[in-house]
Amino acid sequence: MHNKMEAKFNLHLKALLDLLPENASVSEHFPVSSSETLLSEKPVNETPRLVVALSGGVDSVVLLHLLVNFKKCHPAYSVIAHNVNHGLSDNADHWGIFCAELCQKLKVPFISSTVKIEKKSRSSLEALARDARYQCFKDNMLENDIILTGHHQDDQLETLLLALKRGSGSTGLQGIRSTQPFFNGHLVRPLLIFSRQALTDYAEFYQLQWIEDESNQDIDFDRNFIRHQISPLLIQRWPAMAQSASRTAQLCQDQQTLLNEVAQQDLGQCMVKRLSCQTLDIASLAAFSSVRRNNVIRFWLKSNGLQYPSSKQLTILWQEVALADADKQPKLQLESNTICRYQEALYIVPIQSIKTLEEPLTWSGESFLWLDKDRLGVDFSQVDPAVAKQHQIQCCFRQHLDAKLMCLPEGRNKTRSIKKLLHEYQVPPWLRDQVVFILVDNRLIEAIGLWRCQPNASNVSNIPIMDLSLYSR
Amino acid sequence: MHNKMEAKFNLHLKALLDLLPENASVSEHFPVSSSETLLSEKPVNETPRLVVALSGGVDSVVLLHLLVNFKKCHPAYSVIAHNVNHGLSDNADHWGIFCAELCQKLKVPFISSTVKIEKKSRSSLEALARDARYQCFKDNMLENDIILTGHHQDDQLETLLLALKRGSGSTGLQGIRSTQPFFNGHLVRPLLIFSRQALTDYAEFYQLQWIEDESNQDIDFDRNFIRHQISPLLIQRWPAMAQSASRTAQLCQDQQTLLNEVAQQDLGQCMVKRLSCQTLDIASLAAFSSVRRNNVIRFWLKSNGLQYPSSKQLTILWQEVALADADKQPKLQLESNTICRYQEALYIVPIQSIKTLEEPLTWSGESFLWLDKDRLGVDFSQVDPAVAKQHQIQCCFRQHLDAKLMCLPEGRNKTRSIKKLLHEYQVPPWLRDQVVFILVDNRLIEAIGLWRCQPNASNVSNIPIMDLSLYSR
Repeated sequence: MHNKMEAKFNLHLKALLDLLPENASVSEHFPVSSSETLLSEKPVNETPRLVVALSGGVDSVVLLHLLVNFKKCHPAYSVIAHNVNHGLSDNADHWGIFCAELCQKLKVPFISSTVKIEKKSRSSLEALARDARYQCFKDNMLENDIILTGHHQDDQLETLLLALKRGSGSTGLQGIRSTQPFFNGHLVRPLLIFSRQALTDYAEFYQLQWIEDESNQDIDFDRNFIRHQISPLLIQRWPAMAQSASRTAQLCQDQQTLLNEVAQQDLGQCMVKRLSCQTLDIASLAAFSSVRRNNVIRFWLKSNGLQYPSSKQLTILWQEVALADADKQPKLQLESNTICRYQEALYIVPIQSIKTLEEPLTWSGESFLWLDKDRLGVDFSQVDPAVAKQHQIQCCFRQHLDAKLMCLPEGRNKTRSIKKLLHEYQVPPWLRDQVVFILVDNRLIEAIGLWRCQPNASNVSNIPIMDLSLYSR
Repeated sequence: MHNKMEAKFNLHLKALLDLLPENASVSEHFPVSSSETLLSEKPVNETPRLVVALSGGVDSVVLLHLLVNFKKCHPAYSVIAHNVNHGLSDNADHWGIFCAELCQKLKVPFISSTVKIEKKSRSSLEALARDARYQCFKDNMLENDIILTGHHQDDQLETLLLALKRGSGSTGLQGIRSTQPFFNGHLVRPLLIFSRQALTDYAEFYQLQWIEDESNQDIDFDRNFIRHQISPLLIQRWPAMAQSASRTAQLCQDQQTLLNEVAQQDLGQCMVKRLSCQTLDIASLAAFSSVRRNNVIRFWLKSNGLQYPSSKQLTILWQEVALADADKQPKLQLESNTICRYQEALYIVPIQSIKTLEEPLTWSGESFLWLDKDRLGVDFSQVDPAVAKQHQIQCCFRQHLDAKLMCLPEGRNKTRSIKKLLHEYQVPPWLRDQVVFILVDNRLIEAIGLWRCQPNASNVSNIPIMDLSLYSR
């Protein structure tokens, strides 16, 4: 019977691994923050490592055991284990030692990390610990690493019941995914097809040793309340309950995939790029049915790094912002962004404004130049770094330009003031201080994303043409 | 506080009623069965009646009470009550009397019906009783009647937990809808916004009397198990749990609306009408992503009156039926239908074959002529009934035609045998015995849905041109 489980695990994990896309990408819809990819220069890993998130509990101990067995059939993979010490339990050091010894016995390379968590409110402790743990995995990841966690079918049931409690709809009911892109690799949960009981049986059959986390008994945590008070009653009555919940999660995941596909397609019809902003054209949105419109708006917010809005927020966003009278300047305040309307389009406006520069910033050949770390930068990757030696290339804002400066954009036949041009190019008021101008040898040559200036006769051969793009968030 | 509840109820119900489409239709995707609409000649009702499904339990008693109050503000509506006696409880007669007396006291017209339910397995008893009850409502419905039931927020939570147990995905997680088309009117559940506790408080405040259904205590019924063993624990811990579940149900409903919209649109790209069958073109299906393809196939099956297929059935349908080698005749067996492939299209083939006629059937002027009751019929509604007196119009199958009969379809220049024509018109083998031929004065004039015969010189002015269509299921 346990041979059967091993065989099932090996087949299932191999299938999951084979289906992973070659190049993991966290999201295709917006650039990731500098700390994640743009500045990442970690070594690339040819044969992917399977990194077990090892807590010492029965789930991850069984996972490690199964993986050691898996490697025998699939020697191309390497298996390592990673224990994160949150320091939340008095026994945490003991767990670390237990994991280290287990790995030594199994001849599995072992990484140990310690994180410090500030205890805030009780209810967020689980979330804080999880975030710290996943950050720790990221910090230690090589390109194409596969992090494996011991989540099983009963965890899935708990997750779905918690989603029902939150009222988060089918977004939350997608539950735990068996694979997902994660930083520069993937996160894989190969035990989701097994019940907790099956894992415990397996551990007992092989006389594996593991540690009981005493905090798992604390029903002050919502998940533990479900685990100890609700799930057992349900599973006792309907032994296939956890399996059914997994099926539901899978169906909701498939559905979300389809809804995203539709949203992506619809976004093509209503998204207009203005400056570096993905804005939504209100007239195009109005052509959709309300459910379809809500779907594309949700997707737009999410792909710009915001949380999913509530149904109520969606109603306000449409009725009171998009459809407000023309003379109004309506807004919807979200957590750290405001949704504004400007010239028949919806904009996402970060509440925290961009830090202005004291003086123009000189480019010295780097492929990416930050004007405000993680929020506003210029991508110089398409420009030969040697140019920085031949010319003085500077980035600046309008405050650094002569107030009377007149400018002749390409394709125009009259010079205009910067102020007039910003208006003509439909830059919303709140973005006008964030337009990045490029000076070459003290001469304005470009407002990135808006216009390029016509070269005048004296410098036509002199000034390099650069392919720049703006990143802002 | 209870005044507030009445005000909230009045506003909510009015909003629900105002949003109902004028003409109820059970489904726009396929004709409804004869017993439901085609032959329905019930009187039309100008001012819609609000018909309370009155069991005598607290929910429906409160609903009736609220409706009597609602009518005071909205006198255009009439309120009546309908009790269905299932005869399942020894006290059922007592309940009927209780309901009758209550209605007399409230001056509400009262209908009482009795149904007989054959006790089969215990677990299906609830479903049998519900089906019988709803059938009873239908039997007593006038056009545009609005049936109201007392379902509340806690029922919604129970329904969602039961859906989770069945693993039916977000289809099941749509839960109970607050309005839906029902027969020739609507079904409305205005109490879904209130908790069970709020209803009980209301009943106690007004000192209403009601009956406790002793079967509600029987936890052999899955729903009662949830109601008594699970929901109270959840609601005690999270008082807003039932409200959250309602939100989830609403979100899943919206999502299903969107998925249906997408499916309907996609169906336009891949559905080909052959004879009276809605078939799916395999090449067009192949152009979709797998989740999108599954969505359209599910919708196609559902709109042809079949149950939603399981994920496994969908996989088989695509991999082993649609994509089978060209020389194969693959099939997928569903409950009462088979899905077959013929000439690069998918067909739904009922297992039970059409009853063949002993001899041709003569039309005598009716607007709809059944060849096999509820399954195969000819729509004569566009034909003047007087034609039946001037000519002998007959419907028949190929078995009734002379085996050597040659036929010249319109637009062709050579006569062909019926056998050859059926093949040329791509009628799959299993449908060839169901093609309906029309004889006028013993002369073949049409194979419905396939071709019309060219009139020959001798009868050109004589034979009426009829606009006929086939209904089959």
